[in-house]
Amino acid sequence: MTTIAIVGLGVVGGSFAKALKQKPLSDECVLAIDSDQETLDKALADGVIEEGESHNQTILQRADLVIICLYPEALKNFVQSHKSEFKKGAILTDVTGVKGALMANMEKSLPKQVDFIFGHPMAGRESKGYAYADGAIFQGANYVITPRPENQLANIEKVKKRFERLGFKRISIVTPEKHDEMIAFTSQLCHAIAVSLINSDHPERETASFVGDSYRDLTRIAKINAPLWTELFLENKEALLNAMADFEKQFVAMKHALVTENGCELEEMFQESTERRQRLEEADTKLNQL
Amino acid sequence: MTTIAIVGLGVVGGSFAKALKQKPLSDECVLAIDSDQETLDKALADGVIEEGESHNQTILQRADLVIICLYPEALKNFVQSHKSEFKKGAILTDVTGVKGALMANMEKSLPKQVDFIFGHPMAGRESKGYAYADGAIFQGANYVITPRPENQLANIEKVKKRFERLGFKRISIVTPEKHDEMIAFTSQLCHAIAVSLINSDHPERETASFVGDSYRDLTRIAKINAPLWTELFLENKEALLNAMADFEKQFVAMKHALVTENGCELEEMFQESTERRQRLEEADTKLNQL
Repeated sequence: MTTIAIVGLGVVGGSFAKALKQKPLSDECVLAIDSDQETLDKALADGVIEEGESHNQTILQRADLVIICLYPEALKNFVQSHKSEFKKGAILTDVTGVKGALMANMEKSLPKQVDFIFGHPMAGRESKGYAYADGAIFQGANYVITPRPENQLANIEKVKKRFERLGFKRISIVTPEKHDEMIAFTSQLCHAIAVSLINSDHPERETASFVGDSYRDLTRIAKINAPLWTELFLENKEALLNAMADFEKQFVAMKHALVTENGCELEEMFQESTERRQRLEEADTKLNQL
Repeated sequence: MTTIAIVGLGVVGGSFAKALKQKPLSDECVLAIDSDQETLDKALADGVIEEGESHNQTILQRADLVIICLYPEALKNFVQSHKSEFKKGAILTDVTGVKGALMANMEKSLPKQVDFIFGHPMAGRESKGYAYADGAIFQGANYVITPRPENQLANIEKVKKRFERLGFKRISIVTPEKHDEMIAFTSQLCHAIAVSLINSDHPERETASFVGDSYRDLTRIAKINAPLWTELFLENKEALLNAMADFEKQFVAMKHALVTENGCELEEMFQESTERRQRLEEADTKLNQL
């Protein structure tokens, strides 16, 4: 029997609980810790967890796999304050969107009796809380593991095996630095752009009458969990600033082509972006056919 | 009987033909002019047009409403070279995404016997050509009319009436300058951002393994009709540069908040963007309930 404990039944933790339940394994039992009793009651009523505790009483002592779905600061505090309660030989993992600074920061305080394997399921929702949790969000998503030298290969394999069935398409294993560089680009920069875009509107405009799908798509993620993303941005400052600088360079080059009315250069930029997007779509299609 | 001629059965013109056919009026007959005979044959076979000509022979002489779905330069040339062929009293309209410079440029060469009402259906697809035309793209979309002083109110009403049934939710009537200011922001700036974003990636990266929905959403429109958008950008240079400057100001402010590790400021930006996006969604929802 493998006992899985989910810590934090928010939109990501709740989605894990639901996804695990949708493809149940007979040897698996899913428990949860969440400070909000109502959320636990809801998850129990939905049948996606078998037991819940609003403060750890016995769950951490029993869990073989602990999936901690908390914000970065809360994650650090949780692990620190429950250090001695984790079961010997348990695997711990997280869902945090930044890795380098977080892992360096936590390294010294990690409990010795467990194997903490840092991970990042690249899926989420703009809205927060269990009510928005959805077992389908991992379907076709990317998942990244950033091992520590201390991790046991067999345990990494166990995590991969257990998560694969939730629908993840690509599970990559990279260094925390590589993860942060990529996430700064594919996720954080996108959020920085979406927020800046919608905030650059003039409030007196009747913008809703002039939007098409482009604007709707580009501002979807401007609806953002403000405290969480503030933490994520600050934790990944250097990599994000690099990604922002790369983007600005392209944006300024485009502005220059426009100022100088250089149609050839504009057209080249559009052709380049079309090819790049095409390749991304092809990579996704290819993977979906596997 | 109202004879409608669609000039150019590309993704937009073809969508008009299909949308008109999906909600047919008994007094309406749809014809088309397209330089590509194969496209005409396809549209005839699909039953979305009743006649087609690869070069105007009789269609313009018969049409009461001519919807010209060509790129800006081609639109100018088409109207110029067929000036004397349009039926007396006909209404002409276009679908061009920029208005100010275009209208000023065309003003002198507009045929006197017709009423040219400039319009912009805010819907499209990343892919071009009749094969991607879809009658549903106007469903819930915005439509903007930018009248000239010479336009007859009754004719503007006629265009509105005939297009309303295709699914447009908001039909706005504004000056060409206002249109261009808004489109620079809601459409062109979004394309400039998407193109710059994907072009700022480093080619040696395996980016596909690290993308989530954010990056997919923000780069969808990076697949772009390069010659068309080069024309659109150049035609709306000043307004687009203003929108780009507004965006840059926000982006630089965010960078500054990050460099100085000002978490409060970041959180405020995220809260502001969340409220703005929320209001946009509410405006859309409200409209859909009407």
